Amino acid sequence: MIVCRTIADIRRRLNEVRSANWRERGEPITVGLVPTMGYLHDGHASLLKRAREECDIVVLSIFVNPIQFGPNEDFDRYPRDEERDLRIAEANGVDFVLLPSVEEMYPAPARHSLTIVRVSGVSESLCGASRPGHFDGVATVVSKLFHIVSPERAYFGMKDAQQVAVIRQMVRDLNFPVEIVACPTLREPDGLALSSRNVYLNPEERAQAVVLSQALSRIDGWLAEGVGAFELRNRLADEIRRAPLADIDYVEVRRYPTLEPADDELAEGEYIAALAVRFGRTRLIDNRVFHVRKGEPACSAP
Amino acid sequence: MIVCRTIADIRRRLNEVRSANWRERGEPITVGLVPTMGYLHDGHASLLKRAREECDIVVLSIFVNPIQFGPNEDFDRYPRDEERDLRIAEANGVDFVLLPSVEEMYPAPARHSLTIVRVSGVSESLCGASRPGHFDGVATVVSKLFHIVSPERAYFGMKDAQQVAVIRQMVRDLNFPVEIVACPTLREPDGLALSSRNVYLNPEERAQAVVLSQALSRIDGWLAEGVGAFELRNRLADEIRRAPLADIDYVEVRRYPTLEPADDELAEGEYIAALAVRFGRTRLIDNRVFHVRKGEPACSAP
Repeated sequence: MIVCRTIADIRRRLNEVRSANWRERGEPITVGLVPTMGYLHDGHASLLKRAREECDIVVLSIFVNPIQFGPNEDFDRYPRDEERDLRIAEANGVDFVLLPSVEEMYPAPARHSLTIVRVSGVSESLCGASRPGHFDGVATVVSKLFHIVSPERAYFGMKDAQQVAVIRQMVRDLNFPVEIVACPTLREPDGLALSSRNVYLNPEERAQAVVLSQALSRIDGWLAEGVGAFELRNRLADEIRRAPLADIDYVEVRRYPTLEPADDELAEGEYIAALAVRFGRTRLIDNRVFHVRKGEPACSAP
Repeated sequence: MIVCRTIADIRRRLNEVRSANWRERGEPITVGLVPTMGYLHDGHASLLKRAREECDIVVLSIFVNPIQFGPNEDFDRYPRDEERDLRIAEANGVDFVLLPSVEEMYPAPARHSLTIVRVSGVSESLCGASRPGHFDGVATVVSKLFHIVSPERAYFGMKDAQQVAVIRQMVRDLNFPVEIVACPTLREPDGLALSSRNVYLNPEERAQAVVLSQALSRIDGWLAEGVGAFELRNRLADEIRRAPLADIDYVEVRRYPTLEPADDELAEGEYIAALAVRFGRTRLIDNRVFHVRKGEPACSAP
């Protein structure tokens, strides 16, 4: 496993690998990119495993991207543990780790990017409404990583389903030659979705945070009762409010992947129940994508 | 020369050429892209010639990009002549022409792009101020073309010096693996900068339009007199107003390529005198980039 801290270094090395492969096998290789902000957990590991199965070369990028954090968000205290991340990467068969500094990604004098990739529509609701500029920062840094690594495939977790929708829209609109692979959310034994931010939770918050996945897991039953989008949203919110420390940022039911508002009467199609809830200073997100089929009971995706 | 009307077609063909070259020569090829809106003139031909000299494969794209035109601009009447363009392309050794429809580049239902690439700073003054959204449209379509063709080099004319500055900034900020080559403005014998829009001019407008290049050509002399940025700008404007049909949109002296405002006392560095002037319904642009060196007379770039 090779760790690259500069853009020029990883480019040169990937070019060498690509060229060598053409010369030796007469074939192109498939490069898979797993973009992360580090502090890796089993969710990230599942992306690395999937990439390892599907690609010749696996590139992990670790970069806590300042421009996707708002001014009062947790950029400074976002958890970092480079040594542990590199052990996990190695154990999962990563070939190259891109570990650039902020200065390398956003060189002075700007210290940010004068160029922003903005995905409208799909990025404006849910986390996009709660965190203005967040998805501009995500789309911009992912564009940069795609241009640096030139992957054939890139892997994202469905825990941030809106991020997946934003990246897919960006790839489609801008004709990026990259296939986006979305992988299922991994969960703790009690159902809490894995997140690097779970480490922020104190024991009481951690215990109550289970309410998010518990609420989402009731969706199938509620749909079988024939509830509409409005009632579904309210039942989710009520369920979450049973945890005294839960402070709801949003709970919404929308079409997926367009994230357009759902009519109260759920027509055939794909939907998402998405939520963001604060426990103390920690904001957690979770979601469940589900299908509604005419004349059949609705069923949610795994 | 192969004409491709779909993104999938040109991608497939370029992949074939790249693969064949690896297999037969054991080497990568260099693809040069010349992005245009068609109605080709000798300025475009000079870009094609330069690309032909420097690249293994030359791709010409012809696409009148609706999203870089304002609602009251000339998208509908922009001149088009596909047959003639293809003859010029062939004569200049083009290998592939990408000639997509609006529907191919911006598929329904959106008919535009939900994703926009926005370059701040350099895109906000001059034409960016006169034509809101223009450079968003340019940066977005150029991003798409770069992702479709994956060129190693792309060629742009300095007649739109701001466009060159915007594209360079975008490439730098988003780490596009593309080298931008800027080529000198070509001119009619009387000095008028070549432009597809010159065809709009009636004989009287055409005769008077020569004032733009005449004004710019006086810069060296005025600098030798020691005039500052403010006086330089005013002399240019006065010179242009000698043409009764000239309706000034802007005349400005700025730093190049940042396009930051110039101090009145011109410090050492690179500058641009840029102008946009209407003759009847036709808006023409022209510019001159010049260097100021301490203790030496200033001299303008060719």
